[in-house]
Order: sequence, then C-alpha cells, then structure tokens
Amino acid sequence: MKNNFLIYFYFFAFISIVDAQELKSPNGNLNLKFNLNTNGTPSYSLSYKQKEVIKESKMGFVIKPNISFNENFKITETTFHTENNTWEPVLGEQKTINNHYNEMIVHLTQNKSQWKMTLYFRLFDDGLGFRYEFPVQDNLRHFIIQEETSEFNLAGDHKTFWIPGDYDTNEYKYTTSKISEISKLIKEASKESLAAQSPIKNLAVQTPLMMKTEDGLYINIHEASLSNYPAMFLNIDDKTFTASSHLTPDAVGNKGYIQTGSHTPWRTIVVSDDARDILASKLILNLNEPCAFEDTSWIKPVKYVGVWWEYFIGKGSTWAYSNNQDIVIGKTDFTKLKPNGTHGANTKHVKEYIDFAAANGFDAVLVEGWNEGWEDNTAFKKERIYSFTKSYPDFDVKELSQYAAQNGVKIIMHHETTSSTAEYERQLNDAFRFMDDNNYNAVKTGYVGPIIPRGEHHDGQTMVNHYTYVAQEAAKHHIMVDSHEAVRPTGLSRTYPNWFAQESARGTEFESFGGNNPDHTTILPFTRLMGGPMDYTPGIFQGDLSVYGTMKNKLSSTLTKQLALYVTMYSPLQMAADLPENYMRFKDAFQFIKDVALDWDNSYILEAEPGDYITIARKAKGKQEWFVGGITDENPRTAMIDFSFLPKGKSYNAIIYEDDKEAHYLNKPQSYTIRKIIINNKTKLKQPLAASGGVAISIKEKK
Amino acid sequence: MKNNFLIYFYFFAFISIVDAQELKSPNGNLNLKFNLNTNGTPSYSLSYKQKEVIKESKMGFVIKPNISFNENFKITETTFHTENNTWEPVLGEQKTINNHYNEMIVHLTQNKSQWKMTLYFRLFDDGLGFRYEFPVQDNLRHFIIQEETSEFNLAGDHKTFWIPGDYDTNEYKYTTSKISEISKLIKEASKESLAAQSPIKNLAVQTPLMMKTEDGLYINIHEASLSNYPAMFLNIDDKTFTASSHLTPDAVGNKGYIQTGSHTPWRTIVVSDDARDILASKLILNLNEPCAFEDTSWIKPVKYVGVWWEYFIGKGSTWAYSNNQDIVIGKTDFTKLKPNGTHGANTKHVKEYIDFAAANGFDAVLVEGWNEGWEDNTAFKKERIYSFTKSYPDFDVKELSQYAAQNGVKIIMHHETTSSTAEYERQLNDAFRFMDDNNYNAVKTGYVGPIIPRGEHHDGQTMVNHYTYVAQEAAKHHIMVDSHEAVRPTGLSRTYPNWFAQESARGTEFESFGGNNPDHTTILPFTRLMGGPMDYTPGIFQGDLSVYGTMKNKLSSTLTKQLALYVTMYSPLQMAADLPENYMRFKDAFQFIKDVALDWDNSYILEAEPGDYITIARKAKGKQEWFVGGITDENPRTAMIDFSFLPKGKSYNAIIYEDDKEAHYLNKPQSYTIRKIIINNKTKLKQPLAASGGVAISIKEKK
Repeated sequence: MKNNFLIYFYFFAFISIVDAQELKSPNGNLNLKFNLNTNGTPSYSLSYKQKEVIKESKMGFVIKPNISFNENFKITETTFHTENNTWEPVLGEQKTINNHYNEMIVHLTQNKSQWKMTLYFRLFDDGLGFRYEFPVQDNLRHFIIQEETSEFNLAGDHKTFWIPGDYDTNEYKYTTSKISEISKLIKEASKESLAAQSPIKNLAVQTPLMMKTEDGLYINIHEASLSNYPAMFLNIDDKTFTASSHLTPDAVGNKGYIQTGSHTPWRTIVVSDDARDILASKLILNLNEPCAFEDTSWIKPVKYVGVWWEYFIGKGSTWAYSNNQDIVIGKTDFTKLKPNGTHGANTKHVKEYIDFAAANGFDAVLVEGWNEGWEDNTAFKKERIYSFTKSYPDFDVKELSQYAAQNGVKIIMHHETTSSTAEYERQLNDAFRFMDDNNYNAVKTGYVGPIIPRGEHHDGQTMVNHYTYVAQEAAKHHIMVDSHEAVRPTGLSRTYPNWFAQESARGTEFESFGGNNPDHTTILPFTRLMGGPMDYTPGIFQGDLSVYGTMKNKLSSTLTKQLALYVTMYSPLQMAADLPENYMRFKDAFQFIKDVALDWDNSYILEAEPGDYITIARKAKGKQEWFVGGITDENPRTAMIDFSFLPKGKSYNAIIYEDDKEAHYLNKPQSYTIRKIIINNKTKLKQPLAASGGVAISIKEKK
Repeated sequence: MKNNFLIYFYFFAFISIVDAQELKSPNGNLNLKFNLNTNGTPSYSLSYKQKEVIKESKMGFVIKPNISFNENFKITETTFHTENNTWEPVLGEQKTINNHYNEMIVHLTQNKSQWKMTLYFRLFDDGLGFRYEFPVQDNLRHFIIQEETSEFNLAGDHKTFWIPGDYDTNEYKYTTSKISEISKLIKEASKESLAAQSPIKNLAVQTPLMMKTEDGLYINIHEASLSNYPAMFLNIDDKTFTASSHLTPDAVGNKGYIQTGSHTPWRTIVVSDDARDILASKLILNLNEPCAFEDTSWIKPVKYVGVWWEYFIGKGSTWAYSNNQDIVIGKTDFTKLKPNGTHGANTKHVKEYIDFAAANGFDAVLVEGWNEGWEDNTAFKKERIYSFTKSYPDFDVKELSQYAAQNGVKIIMHHETTSSTAEYERQLNDAFRFMDDNNYNAVKTGYVGPIIPRGEHHDGQTMVNHYTYVAQEAAKHHIMVDSHEAVRPTGLSRTYPNWFAQESARGTEFESFGGNNPDHTTILPFTRLMGGPMDYTPGIFQGDLSVYGTMKNKLSSTLTKQLALYVTMYSPLQMAADLPENYMRFKDAFQFIKDVALDWDNSYILEAEPGDYITIARKAKGKQEWFVGGITDENPRTAMIDFSFLPKGKSYNAIIYEDDKEAHYLNKPQSYTIRKIIINNKTKLKQPLAASGGVAISIKEKK
C-alpha cells in the first residue's frame, strides 16, 4: 500500500512540475509564477506587463512550538479554474461588479509530517489574491500559528504611504517616504497619543499599504475576507525591500488558532500603471464571500447628523450626565445624582437635532452619551462601564423614539464599549432587543482604549471574531452597524452588508485633537478605503475651532473640499458632522450635502494620484443624477474634469461648489462660490482647486 | 482651612492611638491588637486564650506602578461596633446561624497622597475576619493592585494540610507536613497531570489552609465573600513561618482592578483548641452578604444519579457522538455524521437512568455528553467548542423532558465550557432559555482546561466575576448551579443559594485517574469545605475498576466509608455516582443513600481530627430523623459516638452500616454488615472502623 501511494504521489508531482508553474490574468497583463525551491518551500512571484511587481517570495507558516510548516513540501496536485461572472452589491459604488479571474490551486503535502496545505491563487486583471487552506486530514486537527511567513518581496525602493504597525490602532497620520526611509521616520510617525497603542517592536507598517514604483507602477497590498484569523501587518526589511506577514498576537503571544477544514484570509496585491485602477478595483470585494443574508431589503444608506461634534470642540458639552465618580452600573440610581448641567444627550437638545434632520431631509440623528456610565468612560480599567439598555434620566427613550418617528427620522444607537467587549457581549442580546423595542435600526459601536479581555488586541483573532459576531447578531435584528476603532475592513461588507461602514482610520474627529494633514484624504482612498466604506464624518464648515472657546485647532481643508469628500470618500453612511448653526450660516453650500447621493449605479475615477489629488464622478443609484468630487493636497491645482461619463446627446445642469480665488485652507477656508453651468458629455472643465481645496458638482438632466 | 483640618486630623489620631488598639471576641477568648508602626504601616496580631495565633503582621497593598499603599498612614478615626443576631440559610447544616462579633473599624489616610483606606476587623468567638475598604475620595478613583501585602505571621512551625499554589487548579492531593518541610515536598506534591495548570513560581500554597500548632491550636486561613477580586494564595516563608497574600494575576500580570467605593473580600482566620469547632464554624458564611433573592422557594436540595461514572471507568462510553474531527458548531449537520456507537447520552440509556431514579426516589438525572461539540472537547485551543442549545441527534430533548416529568424526575443540564467562558457568556442567555423551555432547573457547569479569554486564570478577578455572573443569571431563570473546576468557594452560597454546590477540589472522579489518599476526605472538610458545599460525588460501591476492562484503579475507601461521606461531606447536592447495576448488587447498603437527608436542622461534630477522622451527626430538616457518618484515614480506629444530641426521654431505632471485621480498603472494601439497635440520648457507641473505613447510621424515633 505504501509503495503504491508513493507512485501515485510522484505521478502527480511530476505532472505539476511541468504544468503548474504559471498563471496569467484574463487580459494577460499579470503573470504569476509558482515554484517549490530545493528545500520544498513554496514561493510565488508576480509581474505586470513584464515589470516585476513581487520578486520570488516565500510562503508558509511556523506553527507552535517552532515547527516549520513552510518547507519540505511536495506538490500532490495542481488544478486550474476560470471564473467570470457578475454580482450586485446591496450598497456600493456600482450596481454590478464583474468577478473575472484565473485560478491555480496547488495541493501540497509536507514530507515526514504528512501534513497537507493547499494554496489558492486568483489572478484578476487588477491584481492577485492568494490564500492558504488547511484541509481536514488525519494527522493535523488543531494547531497554533506562531507566525505566517508570507513574503512580498518588492522590486525596488518604492515610494510608500504608510502608518506604523500597531496592534491596537490605525489612527496615525500617514507618512509618505521611500521604503529605505521608513526606519528613520517611524519614530516621528509614531508620536501620537492615542487611547490604545501597542506599537510593533520591529520595523512594521500597516495594510492596506500603498506604493508607487520608480517606473510608475502602483501597488497596493492588503487582505480580503478577514475571518477567524488575526489581522496582518507587514514587517519591512528596508535593505532588501521585502515585506513579510506579521500577524497580531493574542494575550499569550499566539497568533492564530486553527482547526483544519479552514483557510486564511486572502492576501491581496492590487497593481496597475494607472493610479485610477487602484481606486476602481473591486478585487477585495470579489474575494469576499457573497452576502450571507437572504433578505437585505432592510439595509439602506443613511445620511445623518448628530449630537457629536459638540463634544470635541471645547463647547463644554459632555457625554456624562453627572460628575460623580463612584457610579456602578446596576447599582447606582442615576435619577438621584446631581446633573452636571452640560450633558449633551438630553431630550430637548436631541429634539432640536430631530427637527433639524427632518427639515433638511436627513435620515437619522446619532446621539452619543445617552446611556448610563459615561462618568467612567476614560477609566480604562473597568470591565463594566456602561449599560446599553438604561438611558440617563434626562434622555427620554420612549418620547424621543416617538418624536423621531413622527418626524420621519431614525435615531442612531450608540454603543461605546471602551473596548470592554467581554461586557458588551454579555449585554448584546438585551442591547439589540432594546433597540428593537425603541425603533432603532442602526448602531455606531466604539472600541476606544485597550481591550478587555485584557492582553487582547483590536486586531487579534478574538477581536476579529467579535466584530463579525456583532454584525451577525445585529443582522438578526435588522440592525446596521458602523464600527469605530475596529480592525480595518477587508471587504466583509459584501458578506455582511449591514456592517455598512467603519471608522478604523484617522477620521475627522482628529481635526479637533491633533489635526489631519492636507493630503490625508488623498491617501485614505488608496489605503483604508481599499477594504470598505469609512464613516469619515466630513462636512465641517466652521474649521477654526477657536470660535467656540479656548481651542486653537484649524481644519486642514477648505469648505468646498469638505463637500467633495462626500463623493471622493465612498460610504453609504455619511454624516454632516458640523453643528446645525454652521449649516444655517452656509445654507447654499449645505445644499450639496442635502443633495448628494449615498448609493451608486456607477463610479468614474477621473483623476487620481495618491497623496496628491483625486477626482471622482458617480451616478446616483436609480436616478439620472451625478455628483463629482475633486480634492487636492496642500498644493493648489487645476482639475481636468471630463464629463464623458454622462449619457450622450443630452444637456445637464451642473451646480459647481468651488474654492474662490482667495480660498486657502490655512486662512480662507470658507471662501467659496457656487455657479451653475450647462454641460454635456463632451464638456471638459478646467477647475481650479485651492491649497487643500476641492470642488463638488451636482448634475441633473436639463428638463 | 488647611490648618483647621490638620487640628481636626490630629485630634482623632490622638483618640485612636489611646483607644483603638485592642478588640476582644464576645467570649473574650480571642484578642486582636492593631498597630501602626513607625513607618505608618498598619499591622495586627491575634491570640487565643493567651496563645499567639498570628504574630504582628503587616497589612496593605502595592498599587501599580510600584506605589506603596501600605505605609505612611495616619489613623483618622476608629470606631467600634457589636453585632449579635441570627439568620436562616436557605439550605444548610443548621436551620439557624448565630452571627455574633465585635467590630473595630480603623480609618486611615496616607500622608502626601491623602489616599484613604478603611480596615474592618470582625472578631467572632471562632475567629477573625478582616477586610480593606477603599472609600470614595477625591484623589483616588480607579487603580490597579500590583499585590496585596497582608501577612499572616504564624507563631511556629505548624503542621499543615496543603496543596500547591496554582492559579488554575485545586485538584491536587493534600500533603501533610510542617511548614518548614513544604519547600522540599512541593515538587512531589505538584506532580500531577491536570487539564490546566499554572503553578505559582515561588513557594505558595492554597487556601483554605488548615494548620495545627504544637500546643494544640487549630488554625484555618481562608477568605470570605470573594467578589470582583482575584482569589488569594499564600506565599510561604518557611524560615519565619510567615504566610502572605498572593493574588491571582490576570492575562497581563495585574492583580486586581479597583474602583473606590468598594472593598476586598474578608481574610478569615478560624481558630480553636478543639478541631470540632473548626468544622462547626459559620464564620465564613457570617461574613458573606445576606441572600440576594427575595423568593427562594425554588431552591431545593437534589439527590441525583447520572450518565457520568461510566465515562471514567474504561467501559468505552464516550461523551462524543461521532469520531469526526472537522466539526464546526453552527455549520456541521450532526444528523449526517456517522455515530461512533459508544455515545453515552442517548435517549434509550437516559430513560434507563430516569427509570432507576424514579424507582429509587432520586430527584434528578445528570446527563453529560448530550450536546453538540464533544468531538473537540480536548482541543484546548478552540474558542467555540459546544452548542448549549443543540443536542446530539440521538438525544431527544423533548421526549426525555416529557419522560422525566412523567416519572417525577428532573434532568440536570450539563454545560461543560472547556473554559471558553467567552463563548459560554455569548450563549448563556439562549442556554438558560433552552433550559426553561425543556423543564431543566439545575445545571452542572464545567471549566476543564485553560481559560479563554486566553491568559486569564480560573482564580483571577475576571473568572471570579464570571462564576458569580452565571449564578446571578441562572437565578433569573430559577436555575440552580453546581460549578466544577471553578475557584474554590468562599461562602457565596449564602448570598446566591442557587449556587448550591461546587467541585473545586479533587473529587471522586480522581479515583479513576490517579486515586485519592485514604485521608483525603478527612482533610477536605477542614480545607475545601470551609468555603461551601462540595459535589464530591460519593457512593462508589464497585471500587475495583478492573472489573470493567483494562483499568487497574482501586478506590481508597471501604463501601461503608462511601456511605458515611453523605454525612461528613455536607452538600445539599449529592450524587449516587456508581452505576445502577452496582446499587442493585448491594441493595441493603444502597438503602442508606436513598434514606439520607440533604438539608438539616442541626449538625453535631462529634469527633474530628484533620487528616485522621471525622464523626458527624445531623438532624434532617423538619423531620425527626438523624444521620451519623464517621470516617477514618488509612488507620482503623474506634469511633466514640455519643448520642446525647438526641432528644431526651425517647427511644430510637438506629440502622448501623458498618465495616465488618475483615473489611479493609485495599482488599476487602465491600465487607460490611448492617445491624439495627435501639438507642436513646444516653447511648454511647464504640464503633470500630476499618482501615479507610467508615460507619453510617440512620436514626428514627421508635414508634
């Protein structure tokens, strides 16, 4: 029997060595090579139009304790497969997405151990995805990953757009540098005081990692369909320009608990010689599982305002109801506490927001600080901080629920967990039932501070499972989820479309505590947004915060750039984050926020260069309406807007919200003009943008 | 103002130095001295009838990072208080418990920091309890305990009954030695292969720690009312004979997360010159909070049999339904798996147990292995192992629920968590609702293996909170809880009487894998049982396991000793753990198990010496029935049973289950006789016990 097996084994191995070395993308531009070296270590390399993208790069794992699972392999079988189909996202940048790839599947068996592993390579026209599968087998059942040893051996000292590797936060500013410069810049780049920080000790950066080669290739490395596995960082060897996988450890230093019959997430490499293709890529969504729900009719885009920005700008509003320091959830009777008089989430104030939302066509009002416990929200030691079912005495849940319903507005639930997910999971059932009972259909979750269970990290396997669990449980209640401070997304919004937005990067709130760079929003679509929609909370019209009190922060953006972000930063969840009073001061500009769509039939990346500028046009879903957003970094520029995406033979009214000649993000951010022109699909517009300025255009067919 | 405050401050300090140094127990036998040394470190000492029990011992904490909270204190006020009342436990060894103590409360303020701490000393006639309170204060709100520095400075090289300090298990065998011998014996004592082990690196033992001094004092150190705090171990200095507190760390090495407005558990020192007083002490219960529930009518004692022992004895029965290795809860369809044919918890077999229980007057049948997931129960890496709401295909929940109800028997639910409490808490709501729906009113929980959340320990603050949380949630559903492998109890069964038994020590199951020493059950009541009832699962009649197959283990007990344990090991939950077929072989002896009560009006500790022998009589609650149990270690002895506890002037029928003359635990464990005599309250019985033998007596008034 054994002898027979060996013959069979070599027979397949022979076949594969001859046949299984190469794979081409459908259009032939991308070429993947697979190889087993003399040690039996699997490796791959990737080229684009004959240019090296990834040089020969090793694959595999070390499993605990110190067992090589990345060498001594033999190929037992290699198969090929082509897929070409389309699917429709529930919400998205385009109505229909094409999923076209050539696939190579390599079955490996390790000598001696006889452990099996299967490699999947999917080559699309816009890039490569590969993943590892651990089939059910006799000799291997449960194991612990000590490290994944996937390499991304880069072909040169590329320009990179990076944030420091950190297991607990992705809220750093981006640094643009060559790979060889990262080591000398990372200390400065890490100088941020964030609520939870666990910087990686060796030289490492986060994904999505955006790069540009000297000869003009754009390369983006990330992952897709992160599920029951820790998030991946990239170790950087700044001498060889090799990036390699670095998984997030758990509380005891282990990197992943695997049961055979499972697979890793996809490692993704999106590549093109046109930066616009990176933004247009749907590779990551394509590598995610289809929608997990049969009925998705309850999943809707949401445009909202909220009791939120006032907490950040030095106006004195507080999340907490009292100044008591001895509150204990379940014991303290909050009705007996002395109110501090500054509690933002009070019934009267929330009604004002509901009125404003109703008057201006918003779907919803977010209310933070509605629930018991905020007196201790910065005490990062306590396991049970909040109740998710008991409101403060001055927030009348029933009355507000009715008032909102009468006004055709939803209230967005807020579940700040302060990262005590242990306690949040205990209350989750009751919390969602409370939402059902009070007519809430969306929740903003928050994960500020270090994780409890203690020692776990935001990006570890346990937390990855937590976020997904919350999305799945929410779906049972037809609740949509917008998670803040969670692991950066990997396209799971395809599978769980109710998990419709995340923060998971440095958002607008940082404009009030530290600031964002002018090029920040020209980088985010090439990095953070590769994985999914971001609740960036744009729309700040009053960027100089000194008007409110003692704060001196200034927004690094003109007002029109704030408008443009509603188009350039795709999300089906968009906030108008500023105070209503500021929108009333700039009613004409506010009109764009009121008008702009959230869900799209199609998107057109007109211009793009990471770190410099982005211009995008989108067609509203099911409507003959288009919106254009253009932004630039600290340098003024002239956008070239080609309207050829419009249907031929018709005329259109375009309203252009533009920086005026004096506009500058530093001293004249509110200098804008609004003009109306008539265009058609042959129009080409030279549109000047101010320093860190923008342009926003709404377009309707001329009647 | 500041000046005024200082005057006020010293005024009180002066008063306290004169008055607050000493406290006597109500009967005057115990004397406590409190002192602040020149460094401002609080200390206490304790004597019993002029004999030193605890020499001057320091108190306090080190809080993170390295901040002394055990020196530089000033006394601001000292108050005294006396309490003398009675209360009735829901279930217990006696109907009424007297709570009589003198209390001293010492308010301390630390210089410079101005942090406040209050010490509570309660001196009963049978011992001392002290605890630390952290009052709400301006300068201290949340802090992390690095270590508690409570000392128990012992007066000599006492004989001790100890198990090695281990954060994750208390299932070691006891060692009896002098304190000075612990260090040379602890390596041998730790040689056990247990499912989860985290031995303490320095010399440390577990509480309850039982000791006997050379001059005949019995001292027991433990804790009471362990809540939101880690369990305490005792560091041992074997030169100075100082024990000191060693708290269980969490996953990141912290020892306790404290919010002011809280207090520690009580540190307890039970002391007497009569060993019987130790067993009779209700000090630990007295130091717990009163019952937390208004309605306790649903809390009942339970005598049960179960599908359990057959899994341990080499009969081939398995918890698992299949031999598949790729099961995933929520995905695998178990009805499509091939059954392994050895699954114990099948409908037919459980019905046999229900029949047996009904025929013999048992309240309930425990069924382990009823639910999906046992194929992976030893895979200590997986977070989601079990479903607690889905039964295996061959276990018909509805049918068995009906069949049990028709026969007047309950089925006891089993929730083995394999210590993935993260997943258990997720399912807990549904699991209890499933129990409601199917007529279950008691659950045996299990915590085998290392804890998930990973890095946490069975005895840490997080898990302490978990066990209590489960008991509290269960109470909402009128469910009683019997937790196995949980932290050892500290009297919380007073507060949560539905948490009516625990294992938390080396139970009968170890007779099948490693064995228990003949003196084991003469030590347990002085150690483990000080904190609360134990589900020891006695009643093994067939002690020689070789009859079943290949196992060679033999029970270290005669059959009559097994009977006696139902009296000597107090618990309102008692199992008849052996196979029904063995009870049918010894029907006459089985009668005692059928007859014995579980809840008591009164208990009489007739004879006791830790490690040697125990004889206890108890009066059944609300009945004119008494039961006596007497056990001995490996040495035969003659018990002197004084029946003066019986009411005067009446005659009683006594049935005596005794070792016969040939009986010996090693080779004649099943040699017993049963005789009937008539006794009255003047009867004194000289009752011989075999080596590791026992005697059990049931007594009824003669009609």
